Amino acid sequence: MATVKLWTDEEVSAAPRIQAVFDDIRSTRKSDFVNNFWRALANQPALLERTWASIKEVMVAPGTLDPLTKELIYIAVSTINSCSYCIHSHTAAARAKGLTDDQHAELLAVIGMASETNALSNALQVPVDPEFLAK
Amino acid sequence: MATVKLWTDEEVSAAPRIQAVFDDIRSTRKSDFVNNFWRALANQPALLERTWASIKEVMVAPGTLDPLTKELIYIAVSTINSCSYCIHSHTAAARAKGLTDDQHAELLAVIGMASETNALSNALQVPVDPEFLAK
Amino acid sequence: MATVKLWTDEEVSAAPRIQAVFDDIRSTRKSDFVNNFWRALANQPALLERTWASIKEVMVAPGTLDPLTKELIYIAVSTINSCSYCIHSHTAAARAKGLTDDQHAELLAVIGMASETNALSNALQVPVDPEFLAK
Amino acid sequence: MATVKLWTDEEVSAAPRIQAVFDDIRSTRKSDFVNNFWRALANQPALLERTWASIKEVMVAPGTLDPLTKELIYIAVSTINSCSYCIHSHTAAARAKGLTDDQHAELLAVIGMASETNALSNALQVPVDPEFLAK
Amino acid sequence: MATVKLWTDEEVSAAPRIQAVFDDIRSTRKSDFVNNFWRALANQPALLERTWASIKEVMVAPGTLDPLTKELIYIAVSTINSCSYCIHSHTAAARAKGLTDDQHAELLAVIGMASETNALSNALQVPVDPEFLAK
Amino acid sequence: MATVKLWTDEEVSAAPRIQAVFDDIRSTRKSDFVNNFWRALANQPALLERTWASIKEVMVAPGTLDPLTKELIYIAVSTINSCSYCIHSHTAAARAKGLTDDQHAELLAVIGMASETNALSNALQVPVDPEFLAK
Repeated sequence: MATVKLWTDEEVSAAPRIQAVFDDIRSTRKSDFVNNFWRALANQPALLERTWASIKEVMVAPGTLDPLTKELIYIAVSTINSCSYCIHSHTAAARAKGLTDDQHAELLAVIGMASETNALSNALQVPVDPEFLAK
Repeated sequence: MATVKLWTDEEVSAAPRIQAVFDDIRSTRKSDFVNNFWRALANQPALLERTWASIKEVMVAPGTLDPLTKELIYIAVSTINSCSYCIHSHTAAARAKGLTDDQHAELLAVIGMASETNALSNALQVPVDPEFLAK
Repeated sequence: MATVKLWTDEEVSAAPRIQAVFDDIRSTRKSDFVNNFWRALANQPALLERTWASIKEVMVAPGTLDPLTKELIYIAVSTINSCSYCIHSHTAAARAKGLTDDQHAELLAVIGMASETNALSNALQVPVDPEFLAK
Repeated sequence: MATVKLWTDEEVSAAPRIQAVFDDIRSTRKSDFVNNFWRALANQPALLERTWASIKEVMVAPGTLDPLTKELIYIAVSTINSCSYCIHSHTAAARAKGLTDDQHAELLAVIGMASETNALSNALQVPVDPEFLAK
Repeated sequence: MATVKLWTDEEVSAAPRIQAVFDDIRSTRKSDFVNNFWRALANQPALLERTWASIKEVMVAPGTLDPLTKELIYIAVSTINSCSYCIHSHTAAARAKGLTDDQHAELLAVIGMASETNALSNALQVPVDPEFLAK
Repeated sequence: MATVKLWTDEEVSAAPRIQAVFDDIRSTRKSDFVNNFWRALANQPALLERTWASIKEVMVAPGTLDPLTKELIYIAVSTINSCSYCIHSHTAAARAKGLTDDQHAELLAVIGMASETNALSNALQVPVDPEFLAK
């Protein structure tokens, strides 16, 4: 289904530059599983390296937002961008990080509500209140 | 700029159905300020009532996601939907709820990263791994 | 503000190919007013001609959908595509064709509702019921 | 395929809050068929209730726009939001409400035309004509 | 899966207006293969004719952008619009026109990068520098 | 207008980490002009550094796509994402790299055409031809 081939572990093992990224994915995540997104990006080694480095910095490195909150934001963006793969993978990731059914329900409610008021605001072309501008 | 007129407090005061919603907005938020979104929606009383009731249920009523997290999700959705008004109003709302500069920076990083990998996944048409499907 | 210059009537009068389209816009619409969209497209004569020919065929020629219904669909698409110019111009066009405040309110309610359920369906990745497939 | 489980009639029968919504869907639509969207939303009872109440108010209750016109708007929004499920379900709903092949063809033409001019207007960043602003 | 039926060659042969377009597609592309997009559009003869005429003028007729560059732009637009069919068909078309793996990798990198900075610019609501305005 | 403050050269000069990025932007582009996007990102030093490093790698470093082609792809993505700032800045960048009026007209025609057929394909839910799948 993909527009490029998906690299198998055997093919990766013959390409040291790609193997290095896959090794880091496995050790960072403490799991042997490498999902299809990385197997597709393996066709573009430079992009694979840069994307994984960014994901590690943004999603894995400790910061002021906790890992689950980041996944909720990721799901929200993926939903509006209509990225079926990303919705599936980040919903699974959120669950692995402890997302409860109640939290999932609230996430959906906020995404739905925001989509509705976004459409209303755009259709009405509501002018920004001066109170909202950054000082 | 709006495609409809924005209702002033004086005009609202002559329309009891709208006044009731504005009163509830003010008492719920403990603030006299009613932003333009509601002044535009005042042209559609039924939609105004339903939208405010939903916002109260989704964004104000206590739940399992804290109010700031909900604002972060709202900003993420509004950004991808390119709703200028909503980005401004919910960024201001998030700040009022305690958003720090560091959290804002991380939110932006996650939104940007998700947008990038959404585009890559869609361009590559990556098939969903069976591991991600709901059991 | 535009990324190209907007052609004035005087400039158009010196360019017969563009003038011909502007003349047809004016006679078709029975109005001397030519809006900025066409003044921007005047930089691309072939695109100007093709776009106006399509608009005439789709929006002006009689068919099975009445002109106001077509404007409602146009507003809906423009809202979701976040095209500020198009939302303004087609809301004005709909009003000129008789859009009432009540109809506008219902249009907004449907656009908002659809946006909400679109987001929910995508976030939930709901599989299509076999009953909905074309026979 | 869904990111949540789809509730069967048997599971629903053991959950009175969900059963009540399903009963109302069936009696409102005068049909025993309950489509997957509601079976997925059943995981979030509060969201299920609120969404169905809104759909009833917006899409079922009589108003100034006829039911078929509302479905056309719904299809237009769903198409631009790239919601595969919603495109299928509302195209089927429109057909059940009498959509003819000619009307479908015109709907598609308007959606396509609007998408094209939306892109052109955005790429050209055409400034809004003062004539289009709400008085 | 489609919301309309896909016309077979046999059905097309009984409809001269559609057959004429299919004949022109085949002779223009010097290939007997007619892809599903046109078999779906065959339900709307006027739209089929207009769409094919536009595609020929925009994508086939010689101009100042080479055919492969146009396909790259087409893939970029289709990716952001989340059109699975179009991503598949235009990636295949780009390959048939000589797209190399390195070019594909760079295309993906630009699409991903642009998506990220688009999201950042929108989230930050960055004001346009006067230097960027058209003179 | 921005949701964050825009850093002036004077403020930047007091922040060595940000100054280093601004210096590199100026020397890479051989211009003293630093546009507002970077002045807004200056509030998030880590994001500023990572974004500029990626832009340099993707847009500035030599590759198999020429710099003007990359700008055309960037404009296409920005148009569909409805990023007003990015449309302005990358149209200006494309002009600085030699974009002619005829090329701009063709770019617009392809973006418009793709948007139209994306909408039609999505509305019709056209199934992908097996011929288009990657081998």
